[in-house]
Amino acid sequence: MNTERTLAGRAAIAGIGATDFSKASGRTELHLACEAVATAIADAGLRPNEVDGMVAFSYDTAPDIEIARTLGLGELSFMSLTPHGGGGATATVMHAAMAVATGVADVVVCYRSLNARSGRRLGAGAGRHATTLTGATADMVHMGWYAPYGLVTPAGWVGMVARRYLETSGATTDAFGWVSHAARRHAATNPAAWFYGQPITMEDHRASRWIAEPLRLLDCCQESDGAVAIIVTTPERARDLRAPPVVVRAATQGSGTDQEMMTSYTRPSIEALPEMAVAAAGLWKQAGIGPIDVQTAILYDHFTPYVVMQLEELGFCGRGEAKDFVADGAIEIGGRLPINTNGGQLGEAYIHGMNGIAEAVRQVRGSAVNQVPEVEHVLVTSGTGVPTSAMILGHG
Amino acid sequence: MNTERTLAGRAAIAGIGATDFSKASGRTELHLACEAVATAIADAGLRPNEVDGMVAFSYDTAPDIEIARTLGLGELSFMSLTPHGGGGATATVMHAAMAVATGVADVVVCYRSLNARSGRRLGAGAGRHATTLTGATADMVHMGWYAPYGLVTPAGWVGMVARRYLETSGATTDAFGWVSHAARRHAATNPAAWFYGQPITMEDHRASRWIAEPLRLLDCCQESDGAVAIIVTTPERARDLRAPPVVVRAATQGSGTDQEMMTSYTRPSIEALPEMAVAAAGLWKQAGIGPIDVQTAILYDHFTPYVVMQLEELGFCGRGEAKDFVADGAIEIGGRLPINTNGGQLGEAYIHGMNGIAEAVRQVRGSAVNQVPEVEHVLVTSGTGVPTSAMILGHG
Repeated sequence: MNTERTLAGRAAIAGIGATDFSKASGRTELHLACEAVATAIADAGLRPNEVDGMVAFSYDTAPDIEIARTLGLGELSFMSLTPHGGGGATATVMHAAMAVATGVADVVVCYRSLNARSGRRLGAGAGRHATTLTGATADMVHMGWYAPYGLVTPAGWVGMVARRYLETSGATTDAFGWVSHAARRHAATNPAAWFYGQPITMEDHRASRWIAEPLRLLDCCQESDGAVAIIVTTPERARDLRAPPVVVRAATQGSGTDQEMMTSYTRPSIEALPEMAVAAAGLWKQAGIGPIDVQTAILYDHFTPYVVMQLEELGFCGRGEAKDFVADGAIEIGGRLPINTNGGQLGEAYIHGMNGIAEAVRQVRGSAVNQVPEVEHVLVTSGTGVPTSAMILGHG
Repeated sequence: MNTERTLAGRAAIAGIGATDFSKASGRTELHLACEAVATAIADAGLRPNEVDGMVAFSYDTAPDIEIARTLGLGELSFMSLTPHGGGGATATVMHAAMAVATGVADVVVCYRSLNARSGRRLGAGAGRHATTLTGATADMVHMGWYAPYGLVTPAGWVGMVARRYLETSGATTDAFGWVSHAARRHAATNPAAWFYGQPITMEDHRASRWIAEPLRLLDCCQESDGAVAIIVTTPERARDLRAPPVVVRAATQGSGTDQEMMTSYTRPSIEALPEMAVAAAGLWKQAGIGPIDVQTAILYDHFTPYVVMQLEELGFCGRGEAKDFVADGAIEIGGRLPINTNGGQLGEAYIHGMNGIAEAVRQVRGSAVNQVPEVEHVLVTSGTGVPTSAMILGHG
């Protein structure tokens, strides 16, 4: 038996589906999940009972079997949950890829559904809802170290790191502004985006109010209601389906030394994202390509500083060079590396990174509203500051 | 590239570890988890920083990264959670096997830690703690259908199915009693078991009080405090380590049509465990063997009726024949298929199925306290009545 130990090229995305993105969906998270899953199955040209695997976020409240019952998916032979919130976004596809590569399932649905604006707002952080968000888990103990100093929200936790990054890199908050500018420019021409038709100027960013200095309002992603689903199968199967197959060239997860959820302040230095360095190293090795081979990227943008820092961790530029890399529209359509062409989570919607995977699929298919020309490879990342994941998609 | 799509023989268990099993551990679930993981790593003869993957239950409160920080595991490249409580027990090893088979990790720790007696008691069911056990998930809606009729505990939910099984199979509750008898006989000679030195007679079972008719006290597993960890790596790597490798011959998950958590009462018939039928079909196909090739089995025993019914779903006997299969000590040491040789969760401890995996490893290694002679294959199952999982272990 040949036992080549790789995920590269072993799975493909054959379908994508989403609900509308809003601030008040008016329906349950289960309802949203079923809508997105049904849409993705139809996009692939599959029947519901051909699905035999499901992967969700551990944070999701719409269990796999409830969706299976509601949509008539029938029997399942693979079920998995990715931990660590948005850090598990592309990991859902990675787990699905592992399943189809090892034959434990043939067609796996990955999904995330959340009423993150009208329901439980993740941006509220360690406030009133902290323990109901994640249960009483051991990592909440860390809050005892940080909360007394006012570090009680995601923006606050990221603000600590962003401040240090500015100090060591010599960047100004304009580097963050360019990320926001790109997102809103791309959202402005995306009818599915919440901020459709609402671009911003750099002056808008500079004038926007502090949320947790050095983070301004326009550095923070939205809170959204919606759901996204992705269908993963073998490349062979995908070639027989409706949509052009989008092959998973590489998929990795990464957690760094001394990793915490959002508050890894005990590391020797805090102005980096070592979890993404772990994921990135595996990614390039698995795919057998480098940053130069990537034409567009979806970089998880819960907060703009982590997009800037990801560019360095992924090797798109050197340490401290991201401030120059992002300037003057270089990360926008027509620039050297357009990112978050759907508007990202700042501009389209915050679906915990899953809408970014759908956009990456559209970029490979050639069907994105802000299409990058001649796309060979798209890199997609998941939430950082937490254990993360990343992948590279390409043609079938 | 050869892309043989199978898990069979692609991974091995190289280490096992556990805490003591008690009713009041006196330490946190994180503490227990770290103890078990450290012990398993030592059992394998590995260094902590050689671990690069972790799998837990979604119900666990000791997150992977907290254990990684505490024990100095360093960077991780694979993280997964199995859904559905005890149904995900052997699925932890399956996910780990998928990871090492596809090269995303080399050494994966699977673990479960719980203070299920001194802390949150799962047996309490949909009572005061229901929503804090699982969060406010969509499946809790089902409780609205069952709770008004008094179906509020796991014993009650299983009682419905057990009653119907007795009706259709013609079995008496003695069939359940034999399972309990076997467990307590095996626990009686296992110093690690809570019921060490405390066997029961069939008369003890018949005289024990009703919990939810037809379930008696002695049909219900314990609630325990403790943790278990399992180390999974490639068979090649395992052969270089301290313990004799125990190869994963097959590992599957299964969810049936119209699956709910414990309350799948809307199915055409309820006196079966279709989720285990799904897992079993995949298991035999993957391993390329049949029930006759299995010398001993660890069958998840939260409640004795589900052990009886598993024997039929797994093909150890025909439909309705389990009542004869289990009688007169046939499932005890010296019988035709000794099961739960550690005492099971009725006799040793309720660690959500993970202690059963450790016992299966010992049976293959030849180091069990109640060793079955000439073991070639051990079958291990996970919680039923919920989406489940199962695996077959054998020699390296």
